[in-house]
Amino acid sequence: MEFSAKQISEYLKGNIIGNPDVKVSGFSAIENGEEGTLSFLSNPKYSHFIYDTNASIVLVNKDFEPEKEVKPTLIQVDSAYEALAMLLGWVEQMKPKKNGISPQAFISPTAKIGINVYIAPFVYVGEGAEIGNYVSIDANSYIGENAKVGENTELHAGVKVEKECVIGKNCILHAGAVVGSDGFGFAPTPDGSYRKIPQVGNVIIEDNVEIGANTTIDRATLGSTIIRQGVKLDNLVQIAHNVEVKKNTVIASQSGVAGSSTIGENCVLAGQVGIAGHIEIADRCVFGAQTGVPNSVKEPKSVMQGYPAVPVNIFRRASVVYKNLPELQRIVYELQKAYDAEKEK
Amino acid sequence: MEFSAKQISEYLKGNIIGNPDVKVSGFSAIENGEEGTLSFLSNPKYSHFIYDTNASIVLVNKDFEPEKEVKPTLIQVDSAYEALAMLLGWVEQMKPKKNGISPQAFISPTAKIGINVYIAPFVYVGEGAEIGNYVSIDANSYIGENAKVGENTELHAGVKVEKECVIGKNCILHAGAVVGSDGFGFAPTPDGSYRKIPQVGNVIIEDNVEIGANTTIDRATLGSTIIRQGVKLDNLVQIAHNVEVKKNTVIASQSGVAGSSTIGENCVLAGQVGIAGHIEIADRCVFGAQTGVPNSVKEPKSVMQGYPAVPVNIFRRASVVYKNLPELQRIVYELQKAYDAEKEK
Amino acid sequence: MEFSAKQISEYLKGNIIGNPDVKVSGFSAIENGEEGTLSFLSNPKYSHFIYDTNASIVLVNKDFEPEKEVKPTLIQVDSAYEALAMLLGWVEQMKPKKNGISPQAFISPTAKIGINVYIAPFVYVGEGAEIGNYVSIDANSYIGENAKVGENTELHAGVKVEKECVIGKNCILHAGAVVGSDGFGFAPTPDGSYRKIPQVGNVIIEDNVEIGANTTIDRATLGSTIIRQGVKLDNLVQIAHNVEVKKNTVIASQSGVAGSSTIGENCVLAGQVGIAGHIEIADRCVFGAQTGVPNSVKEPKSVMQGYPAVPVNIFRRASVVYKNLPELQRIVYELQKAYDAEKEK
Repeated sequence: MEFSAKQISEYLKGNIIGNPDVKVSGFSAIENGEEGTLSFLSNPKYSHFIYDTNASIVLVNKDFEPEKEVKPTLIQVDSAYEALAMLLGWVEQMKPKKNGISPQAFISPTAKIGINVYIAPFVYVGEGAEIGNYVSIDANSYIGENAKVGENTELHAGVKVEKECVIGKNCILHAGAVVGSDGFGFAPTPDGSYRKIPQVGNVIIEDNVEIGANTTIDRATLGSTIIRQGVKLDNLVQIAHNVEVKKNTVIASQSGVAGSSTIGENCVLAGQVGIAGHIEIADRCVFGAQTGVPNSVKEPKSVMQGYPAVPVNIFRRASVVYKNLPELQRIVYELQKAYDAEKEK
Repeated sequence: MEFSAKQISEYLKGNIIGNPDVKVSGFSAIENGEEGTLSFLSNPKYSHFIYDTNASIVLVNKDFEPEKEVKPTLIQVDSAYEALAMLLGWVEQMKPKKNGISPQAFISPTAKIGINVYIAPFVYVGEGAEIGNYVSIDANSYIGENAKVGENTELHAGVKVEKECVIGKNCILHAGAVVGSDGFGFAPTPDGSYRKIPQVGNVIIEDNVEIGANTTIDRATLGSTIIRQGVKLDNLVQIAHNVEVKKNTVIASQSGVAGSSTIGENCVLAGQVGIAGHIEIADRCVFGAQTGVPNSVKEPKSVMQGYPAVPVNIFRRASVVYKNLPELQRIVYELQKAYDAEKEK
Repeated sequence: MEFSAKQISEYLKGNIIGNPDVKVSGFSAIENGEEGTLSFLSNPKYSHFIYDTNASIVLVNKDFEPEKEVKPTLIQVDSAYEALAMLLGWVEQMKPKKNGISPQAFISPTAKIGINVYIAPFVYVGEGAEIGNYVSIDANSYIGENAKVGENTELHAGVKVEKECVIGKNCILHAGAVVGSDGFGFAPTPDGSYRKIPQVGNVIIEDNVEIGANTTIDRATLGSTIIRQGVKLDNLVQIAHNVEVKKNTVIASQSGVAGSSTIGENCVLAGQVGIAGHIEIADRCVFGAQTGVPNSVKEPKSVMQGYPAVPVNIFRRASVVYKNLPELQRIVYELQKAYDAEKEK
């Protein structure tokens, strides 16, 4: 299927610079754009690619002004990235969805299965589980006893939803994600070994949540570990038992939140961040990569980085001094020596 | 099934404060406790919840004194957390266990299968593998050739035990855990590429070990990677080839131990800790979150944190100064300038 | 099968010290070497084991000189580690390979399957997928629509290769690895929620790549995430969308590379390293464990460590001063007080 720059611009309410009749039938990255495809330019760092790309159409932010002539037709929009999201979403929606229940799946007779679902081969659906309408579950996934998967949710291959856990509507769980593994709870005993605390709670994932590949979310000891609506978790993230992540918070890869902590709404955790247990993070906080957060952060919109976390401007300035520490120490000892010599006189 | 405060207190050898006849039929977290349930209070941080909870019974430590009247019946015990573990374990034990071998599992004819096992659909059991009595293996799990799983051990969905590896008795392996992947061993060659060192050893996991979801334990190059009895590994932990983790050591999520290192008994690694390769950690050491340990720690009971690791009290004090580094540098340069000016006179 | 020291030495072009007729039939680690086995000594740290080992033959580097008498026959070679790799590879090659397609696998009728493949039970091969000759796919693995797996590549249990992704020849993917999960791309919307950017690119993995257990590699938004030939990724590594890792680079466990970054050839990332997004790392750079790299590294052969990354010699010296910061601060304040007092006079 082909679309012209004019058609696309109208759909996006954009502004055309160049030939409105040029047509595209696919997408490409700007650095190796091919003729007949549409690309986008959002990060100014990549602006130079626009002068060489062979893409036929490029979406650009409305404030983008080419410094010299460009080959492709440009479509100016409020946000090139969001416009791309719209276009891609539109194209994705037109793709036919898989449908039907494989005879090679295992479905407990007591499970309730909605209409228009896709259940692939080697999927296990346990006793009393409920699978909503339009749900898609790819091969080798596991839905434990009495677990629920909400309407229109999509599970990639090898996802495990353990017993009693609840997944909302319109969620996406990527391959290998685990929801509802036991929380890490042990009571020390006098002989130095540990007694397991059975974890009898569950995990509740609200609507519109995305969970990355091989990410793990532990069930609560008692009650629920809760991931609120709109939360996005990247790959290899760890969410411990009894944590609550409030709505629209984004957590990048390899970050971890220890037990019983609460993360506010609309927070951003960059990669490899660690949040200690039993603390609270206010709304709209941002933590730079590899930050370690040992204590509660009460001030909303805090922007912090470091190990342990400090306000990001302090982190940046302290990092610069860090490199200089050996020199600084040398000067201090020299001054001390001079001062001591002075005193002796 | 219902139990009265009196019955529970007798079982736990506790001391009742309040109505001994109140009955419960389930558990709840104290912060949203419901009538007819039992909750617990262990961390003093959560004490304030006891004055509002609707839980009918709350287990408390024997030194807990309510500051004002409380609604629930309290049961004082030596350790509320351990008492909860006992109660939960008791209830869990009464639940019927799954049993039988699914016709949709693949069991090699040369595998030896014990009595009273549960083997779910889509489980693969390879040639010569041995599955002990009372073992439970959930869907989509994999037991490689000649691997052994000891009595009463429980494998959640999608666990992979690679060939020749040995799992002890009473272990729990959570969903997606991998035991026996190849160690990361390569020899550089003159052309800049690497030649794989085949990893022909195995992994030995002793009794009463718990392994978290999506955790990975590599097989030894030669010999065995060893996880001693009572060790508890959280989710997304990495144990490299030829490592030995000695008994009753606890490793929290996203920590990693590099090749050929030995971790002593009863150590505690908090989250995201890294232990370098070819080093030895003494018994009963504790490492704070995100600590990086580059060298052997010979002193038992060392408590360290930081990157690189230093004694925890030094880490705490140095962290405070860190924030102040820009100011400190400013002062040093000012003093130096003053001193130089003085000298010139 | 037994081999004499003489036979092995000839194969390795080595030099025998001791009895050339002693025979071995297996391998063992030097620290618990058994009679009738061959061991190796590469790391000088383990030299003391050679005087106690019961191994019958030990491979040693040609510069190794025993300080006193040793029991085993020694074979001196250029590199004991590489010689071991050769021997192990030779033995591994002689082992019979599994063969055949399980009737319990699901193979789409439109998939193309090469000759001499092994496809285990519960493997899913989607529409239009291509499986090369001599490929081995272990149980519970998943090959998505139109994905390609090159000749002689080996997938362990539970590997997921998502649709359209391409795996080269002679690769090894360890258990639970995920190739082609969605990149983590979301556009913020005015109400604080996020709109998903569909990820319509793929992942391309070239030849001779090894990918660790539970490692995740995201597909590109547009275009391809690329892992070049000879790259070795350890367990639990995260490679984000649109990243390129150039040939023969080695990335140890739990490291992560954020979106759109490029890592040069023959780089080494130790464990738990984080590379920021949209940056470039020159060839032959080395990053110590837990390093955080926020900016591009333009100088080839840079050796860096720290958070944030600095040249490793600076990191080492600054780390030493770090421990001393409280004392340093005390001296500075004392000098300042003395100076102020002096000035007032």
